[in-house]
Amino acid sequence: MSESRNRAGVRLGIIGLGRGFMLTLPSLLAHPDITLFAACSSRSDARKRFEDDFGGIAYADYDAMLGNADVDAVYVATPHELHMEHTVAALEAGKCVLLEKPMAISLAQATVIVDASKTYGKTVIVGPSHSFDPAVGEALQLIKTGDFGKVKIVQSAYHTNFMYRPRRPEELDTKRGGGVIFSQGAHQFDIARMLAGGVGTSLVGQAGVWDASRHSETAYTGLIHFAGGAVANLTYSGNDFYDSDIELGSVSELGFPKNIDPGASRRMLSRLAGNDEANLKKIRSYQGLEVFRQSRAQTKNAEQNEHFGVWRVSLERADLMVFHDRIEVYHENGKYIHSVEGPAGATRRTVCDALVAAVNKDRTPLQIAEWAIGTLECCEAMIASSTDQQPVPLTLQTPVDGHPNLRF
Amino acid sequence: MSESRNRAGVRLGIIGLGRGFMLTLPSLLAHPDITLFAACSSRSDARKRFEDDFGGIAYADYDAMLGNADVDAVYVATPHELHMEHTVAALEAGKCVLLEKPMAISLAQATVIVDASKTYGKTVIVGPSHSFDPAVGEALQLIKTGDFGKVKIVQSAYHTNFMYRPRRPEELDTKRGGGVIFSQGAHQFDIARMLAGGVGTSLVGQAGVWDASRHSETAYTGLIHFAGGAVANLTYSGNDFYDSDIELGSVSELGFPKNIDPGASRRMLSRLAGNDEANLKKIRSYQGLEVFRQSRAQTKNAEQNEHFGVWRVSLERADLMVFHDRIEVYHENGKYIHSVEGPAGATRRTVCDALVAAVNKDRTPLQIAEWAIGTLECCEAMIASSTDQQPVPLTLQTPVDGHPNLRF
Repeated sequence: MSESRNRAGVRLGIIGLGRGFMLTLPSLLAHPDITLFAACSSRSDARKRFEDDFGGIAYADYDAMLGNADVDAVYVATPHELHMEHTVAALEAGKCVLLEKPMAISLAQATVIVDASKTYGKTVIVGPSHSFDPAVGEALQLIKTGDFGKVKIVQSAYHTNFMYRPRRPEELDTKRGGGVIFSQGAHQFDIARMLAGGVGTSLVGQAGVWDASRHSETAYTGLIHFAGGAVANLTYSGNDFYDSDIELGSVSELGFPKNIDPGASRRMLSRLAGNDEANLKKIRSYQGLEVFRQSRAQTKNAEQNEHFGVWRVSLERADLMVFHDRIEVYHENGKYIHSVEGPAGATRRTVCDALVAAVNKDRTPLQIAEWAIGTLECCEAMIASSTDQQPVPLTLQTPVDGHPNLRF
Repeated sequence: MSESRNRAGVRLGIIGLGRGFMLTLPSLLAHPDITLFAACSSRSDARKRFEDDFGGIAYADYDAMLGNADVDAVYVATPHELHMEHTVAALEAGKCVLLEKPMAISLAQATVIVDASKTYGKTVIVGPSHSFDPAVGEALQLIKTGDFGKVKIVQSAYHTNFMYRPRRPEELDTKRGGGVIFSQGAHQFDIARMLAGGVGTSLVGQAGVWDASRHSETAYTGLIHFAGGAVANLTYSGNDFYDSDIELGSVSELGFPKNIDPGASRRMLSRLAGNDEANLKKIRSYQGLEVFRQSRAQTKNAEQNEHFGVWRVSLERADLMVFHDRIEVYHENGKYIHSVEGPAGATRRTVCDALVAAVNKDRTPLQIAEWAIGTLECCEAMIASSTDQQPVPLTLQTPVDGHPNLRF
């Protein structure tokens, strides 16, 4: 068994062959220590193609897949509202889990996951998430040097078309984990916590449904106060007006060259009728490797790192501007550029590395369930604060080891 | 008297021939309906030069100047802590007042000014302020059309070298109106209120002294919630690291071409000894028109509008990006550019126009004392909220007539 694992690396079982899996697939394929070993999908065509493409075993029933002792780890990439059920089942079966963000759609569910992770002694990594993006990790390393003093203000304002991409109904229903807070706040709050030291003390903000036809929150703005003195100032808009990616040389969130076209997604949706939106979403799921490769043919694999917009970190003795490919450092002696290496075809390499290391018990990343519940707490706090404009105390927060704000 | 005024336009008396006067001087000189009629300064050399340069009457004692019945209006451009005394004296003497921001260093002082303005029936305009910048005014006009729905989020993050310019001691003492909150928040909160509808309901934020050698707040970040649903998300840093003016084509806050050089002001200050900083500040005061013209010779008069960084206004149906020379409108049908006319050599023309109109009783601008006390309230609230991270209720706020958020 041990020998077998060494040969195959981490034998991954995937629950859910949808959009999340599609986005991570290139990095999984490129990783030398990960094998696409098994998958579970309710779509028979997806199962057939998974077996043909990867020689893996495809299941209609996730319990059957989890019963396969050769599966070393499970990637839960199902709709948000199913995360708890699938993650707990995988933990019970003794598997490490890579769990798509948001980890769950409520703190109650997230608590069950955290408890199950402890009970069964298996790590849950919540990702892929943009907190795994290389530039974010390197910004944290710069911060940890302590050369620039404590972090005081972390700023992010990311404007996208998020709410006007083709959506399934649950993606437009906040109670089911839809809207920008659960889907995108899960990235933004995660990164903010990493850079600001991790331990939020309160969140105050305002989210809103600006377009009733999209049902769920389309934008929010808010502050998170942190132990150690930092404040994160965060804005997200998924309204398809201004597009922040222009600030990153028109490189998309996924690392692809991009044609900036404000309102284009709104215009496309407005031309659709009836069930077309759900069908459009469906073809963004896994349709087989050939279809995948054709769809990517126009742009090739991502040549740039993924990102979540520009991050501005103001410390006592420097401002850092964090882009996908560089960190600009502004300080008393001028400006210098800290370059960030490109993805070499695997934009999600860091989270895949983290998964392999966790399975091999080499190291555990920051973004495990015990950490991620603090990020989900921020999502719920943003919703709660929006009702009465009052700060919501945060109590489920964990620190970033070695962060200068937490050295006393 | 009436005939005399028609010939001379508004005969202006100035109290304080310092940096504030210097910055407004080109626009005063260029204005067809304003005459530099009298001035009051404690510096005899400045008085002599004022008389030589403008044929005006210079006083050592402001009461004497206020006793001159031919002075139509008074420009109070003294240190912040003297604003109340000078403004109330001018009102008592029956003059309209143009009062530099911040209007005072406490709400108690500001209340005295508001009351005196009512008692004596004379208008106090608080300005020049960047809320008079042409692009801000035109953004408000676009908002008032109602074409884009209600304002939801107003964002500004302006990073400058403010705290590392040469300073007098009181400019580094919060209690005397120093630091970024009173000096720069007075601009930022003013603009935010204009664009968001005016009536803040609460402010939550964090200000801090990041460099003990500068004594007063060097930066802040915060949110203002507004009646009608908008939230302003505001950050200011005067730390001389990142310089936001690069986002406006390297045009300075005052409309001049600028060499972006992070940390340069810190490096210059660190080379100074003893009283050099105060002396450096002094030569930024009025030294006579010839010195002024020589100092400007390198750059000519400002060819671009003044600004206070880029403003991002997110409405229900558009994002506006407000620059000094244009407003970029992003909406469902794409992007278009709304151009903003340049200053034609008088960057502060709008506030001068407002003064002339107020003296002539033609119209009153938004930025009178009754409005400005609401902006000062935000300054005090930022300080108060920083002590306990709690929102501070705002109760002295006045509305922007015709703002879509306030139509029910």
